[in-house]
Amino acid sequence: MIDGNTVITIVGLGLLGGSYAQAFANAGYGVRGIDIEEEAVSYAKEKGWITEGSTNAGLAADTDILICALYPHVFVSWMKENQKLLKPGTLITDVTGVKRSVVSQIASFLRPDLEFIACHPMAGREYKGIRYADASLFAKANFIIVPTEHNTEEAVRTAEQIAQILKFKKISTLTPQQHDEMIAFLSQLTHIVAVSLMNVKDNTHLADFTGDSFRDLTRIARINEEMWPELFMLNEDYLTAEIEALAAELLKFGELIRTGNTEEMKRLLIQSTERRKAFEGQS
Amino acid sequence: MIDGNTVITIVGLGLLGGSYAQAFANAGYGVRGIDIEEEAVSYAKEKGWITEGSTNAGLAADTDILICALYPHVFVSWMKENQKLLKPGTLITDVTGVKRSVVSQIASFLRPDLEFIACHPMAGREYKGIRYADASLFAKANFIIVPTEHNTEEAVRTAEQIAQILKFKKISTLTPQQHDEMIAFLSQLTHIVAVSLMNVKDNTHLADFTGDSFRDLTRIARINEEMWPELFMLNEDYLTAEIEALAAELLKFGELIRTGNTEEMKRLLIQSTERRKAFEGQS
Repeated sequence: MIDGNTVITIVGLGLLGGSYAQAFANAGYGVRGIDIEEEAVSYAKEKGWITEGSTNAGLAADTDILICALYPHVFVSWMKENQKLLKPGTLITDVTGVKRSVVSQIASFLRPDLEFIACHPMAGREYKGIRYADASLFAKANFIIVPTEHNTEEAVRTAEQIAQILKFKKISTLTPQQHDEMIAFLSQLTHIVAVSLMNVKDNTHLADFTGDSFRDLTRIARINEEMWPELFMLNEDYLTAEIEALAAELLKFGELIRTGNTEEMKRLLIQSTERRKAFEGQS
Repeated sequence: MIDGNTVITIVGLGLLGGSYAQAFANAGYGVRGIDIEEEAVSYAKEKGWITEGSTNAGLAADTDILICALYPHVFVSWMKENQKLLKPGTLITDVTGVKRSVVSQIASFLRPDLEFIACHPMAGREYKGIRYADASLFAKANFIIVPTEHNTEEAVRTAEQIAQILKFKKISTLTPQQHDEMIAFLSQLTHIVAVSLMNVKDNTHLADFTGDSFRDLTRIARINEEMWPELFMLNEDYLTAEIEALAAELLKFGELIRTGNTEEMKRLLIQSTERRKAFEGQS
């Protein structure tokens, strides 16, 4: 478990890594930070979010807990290259938005004296970089722990403790499969819907006429183009199935309009209204 | 133009008609109200939103301005049945969410000594009925005037004045075709997307995991099942084309994921981010 003597190092001081560092600092924990950009390291130092920082992976040598806030493929290659630096017993965790692929890749080469516990903090913004870091993002967000049969009970407890220190609203536990299926629908599909609404034709001339509904549906169409394609591809099976199902559902509704099937439309609108109630009181 | 002596009558004291009455009252105008439900009439009276009310259409006999806040087919049939009651020169307006059909239907039978100016207040809530009326809805909403070649300049000015009295944020003018094409994309399509996201499978068990994105995209999935199917069908051509285009756009994105076309995905995400900026600062 984490106490005042635990050495915690964050690798990757971007939007999320920076927000983690800020949240740890707010909670009175001194953490270290590593980033390939000198500027990100000095920014985190100036803000008082890290006690020590470096562009060199060697800073991770004597850490107890290593938090990698990196894009999935960068995380995997960083670990491949640098796990030799870590001391036995270091607990590694991550923030990546897809899990099956990352978990199995890491398991395939991880030193047996290290442990990796996968985590997904479901928080983000449409901007990149530490200058947009904001620890208050976590107060209304879910923290998902994604253990496998390789994980110790102690590692799961430590992940929970991290989520508590960072002040996440809710902590859940899912398998990698459950996680990726859920994220395909709730997050990845919705981002692709928002993006597709913007891309299907140029509608910027309609901005004057938009009400809340169009703005609500496209808020997440401002999106980090470096990160998301990789996340989509690492969840291809679940995600393309969701996309195809939604396209079919839309076309089915179009057919009801074309054939004037008011009764079936009403049934679907009532069903949608009922189901949406399950999500109320949380927004 | 409207002044202190103008007799204004609202037909249909539902969510929108009730909000109109409330907004007129707030602005110091005494209006009359007609509804088939005695309860809606007495509620509006108790609230002080109408000076006179009735379940009888006869109350409209000496009105200068008649505002019909009715579902499209109810509006058309009410006018067919009751236009004989109106005095020469009465200006009629409406609130219906589709225009081509309503405008041409009304034009086909309207007495030549009456004038109809079509209007669409782009405001609403997911609830029905006068008990949910809320004049403050208009402060951030667009009011669209949809004149035809039959309309006088005076009628357009009066419609603008109504929007000002009701304190709409913005007033625009569109042709019936422009209106229906715009509304198909910005409003009707987005509602069908939200509904389809709820209906594609039962995801209520995922409520615990939802972040803002899913909630934003499905907020409007709570929907009035009596009103929308009719609006969809009255805009069938534009709307089904939009649905089909969006379904194709989604499937195209799915294909990019399947084939690992990162470059094209990035291009689409950058384009979507750029276009979405046109809608910023307004939400």
